[in-house]
Amino acid sequence: MKLICQTSELKDAIMNTQRAVAVRSTMQILDGLLIEANQDILLTGYDMEMGITCRIPAEIIEPGKIVITAKMLSDIARKLPGETVSIEVDDQLKVKIVSGKSEFQIKGREADTFPVLPEVAKENELTMSQATLKNMIRQTIFAVSTDEQRHNLNGALLKCAGNLIEMVAIDGFRLALRREESPVELPNLEFIIHGKALRELMNILLDDKAAITLYTTMNHIKFHFGNVTMVSRLIQGEFMNYDSLLPSSSQTQIVINTLKLQRAIERSMLLIESDNLRYPVNFKNEDNVLVVHETTNVGILHEEIEIDISGDNFDIDFNPSYFIDALRAVDDEMISINFNGQVGPCVVNPIEGDKFAYLIMPLRR
Amino acid sequence: MKLICQTSELKDAIMNTQRAVAVRSTMQILDGLLIEANQDILLTGYDMEMGITCRIPAEIIEPGKIVITAKMLSDIARKLPGETVSIEVDDQLKVKIVSGKSEFQIKGREADTFPVLPEVAKENELTMSQATLKNMIRQTIFAVSTDEQRHNLNGALLKCAGNLIEMVAIDGFRLALRREESPVELPNLEFIIHGKALRELMNILLDDKAAITLYTTMNHIKFHFGNVTMVSRLIQGEFMNYDSLLPSSSQTQIVINTLKLQRAIERSMLLIESDNLRYPVNFKNEDNVLVVHETTNVGILHEEIEIDISGDNFDIDFNPSYFIDALRAVDDEMISINFNGQVGPCVVNPIEGDKFAYLIMPLRR
Repeated sequence: MKLICQTSELKDAIMNTQRAVAVRSTMQILDGLLIEANQDILLTGYDMEMGITCRIPAEIIEPGKIVITAKMLSDIARKLPGETVSIEVDDQLKVKIVSGKSEFQIKGREADTFPVLPEVAKENELTMSQATLKNMIRQTIFAVSTDEQRHNLNGALLKCAGNLIEMVAIDGFRLALRREESPVELPNLEFIIHGKALRELMNILLDDKAAITLYTTMNHIKFHFGNVTMVSRLIQGEFMNYDSLLPSSSQTQIVINTLKLQRAIERSMLLIESDNLRYPVNFKNEDNVLVVHETTNVGILHEEIEIDISGDNFDIDFNPSYFIDALRAVDDEMISINFNGQVGPCVVNPIEGDKFAYLIMPLRR
Repeated sequence: MKLICQTSELKDAIMNTQRAVAVRSTMQILDGLLIEANQDILLTGYDMEMGITCRIPAEIIEPGKIVITAKMLSDIARKLPGETVSIEVDDQLKVKIVSGKSEFQIKGREADTFPVLPEVAKENELTMSQATLKNMIRQTIFAVSTDEQRHNLNGALLKCAGNLIEMVAIDGFRLALRREESPVELPNLEFIIHGKALRELMNILLDDKAAITLYTTMNHIKFHFGNVTMVSRLIQGEFMNYDSLLPSSSQTQIVINTLKLQRAIERSMLLIESDNLRYPVNFKNEDNVLVVHETTNVGILHEEIEIDISGDNFDIDFNPSYFIDALRAVDDEMISINFNGQVGPCVVNPIEGDKFAYLIMPLRR
């Protein structure tokens, strides 16, 4: 194998594909990146659950393929001095990397033992902008359960039908729902994507209108955008019936500044010294004021934030970190919070429309 | 005690004084900051080796003093919502911190048990710009020994006489010397300042011409600049006689681009997998080229950098991290390196003048 390509393009491709490289695996080959040189270069990282490939242009002098330890390759690529880089592999799998007046020689590994990514047929196609999908992930991912006992909640549900796309995550204590309207009629689809795949995808996606296309089969999903492709195993099983969880009415509704409430809860958390101790943050109203109150072994915080209120008075305790995750995900300046007494679910909504809904269960006293 | 001050000024004062707060001490009071309110506010952090005080203006409604856990105070100050903050302490040492519509109540501690900083008489005075001292520290601090067995090398020597100031650090394998000329006649002084004190000072000092004044007694040094004062115990004992270490001539002299050499050594270090294994980097010349070579269990790096050379050919091994520390401290685009064979000391100098000298011992084969 021998090729010449742009150093910066190689660097970006390594950064993207490295996200799918296995960190600790019994299959040692999986800590490497597969480089395949044909018309161009295809880099692949794959941990048997999720695979990422990235294609970049190159001058191919001799086609071939090789596996190189991802960390070593990435460290070297980041520090290469020249604008272009030449990679040459000999029969003994010795890899020569030359850039400027710098020449590395490292050992490569047999590419034939690198596992092949699953094929995903071009069916069940769905296209949207990268920015939209990135936002939908960002605004729900925190509520994906990390409890391995609840396997089918370890991902987010992506559901589309008519002209609506929904992404939903539930961890048993809270729910995050994000809704987008589509200008075109969508296929009827419903599948659960692993939290890890969504997180890595969120980190690669651009904040712009460039398109991303999804294809799904029974077992896998494939994301294709720019020069990147990601394939991930889908989570099998039923997702929780979340429609029934969201209350249709509320006993109290308030409208409040998102950032003011977020900052107040952040301050209340300063008084919680250890993650093990769970001190609730208390919300109650005094006329048109929300009183945020926290008492721990360290001290007391008392805050007041102006609100518009309709409905009953309230006096409710929450896990502050659950509440703050939802508030940090919201981009709206003002939000509506709907309380249902001391034990009923609390729901954070936009003031207009139904783009998002965050359900948080109060803590019992 | 009751006072009102600017939140941002309090925040900065906490950040500065917190650097002297003891992290793990048998004296529990030392994890706190002393706040004293009289005409203004004086904050003090002190770990019994080094003390930092910072003075800020305030409206003092009731004078007094209190000790508050530094971490808690700093966390709270950074998140206060208002432009001003009021701090009020009652008879039970309960501290009320109010800013905007946010009110914290935390427990304070008796100020009387906080140890008093040592007095440093205004003798042996030396004044320079903050930027100059900051640079002198930055360009020598890496060579301060961390070997506690070599107590008098755990700091840098500051020496002045005539119109010369020198700062020198030695760790047994290398030496860093930094020289500054003064426009005025200086007192004859020589003392060893703790590495930790220098490091914290470097982080607080500004990159500008604002003045810093030093006073020393037998046992202590006091730095006074802006609204900050730092007091540190001096290291007692003899410093190594470094003049005799620096060779007066050299067998080979090369002139090389600092950054090109730095980057080449950084690349060579990519092949060193573990800090425990010490693979030397090899320098040798081929006509007007420096060949940088590294061979480890992982691979080989070969680089070529153009040089001007006079004197003998050379072929020498170095600890790459020792060499790189010196190169990273140099601001000059081009440097002169003076070799003295495979075992003699190597010295990095400016091309003109004698502002700095970095001596690095080669590794024996």
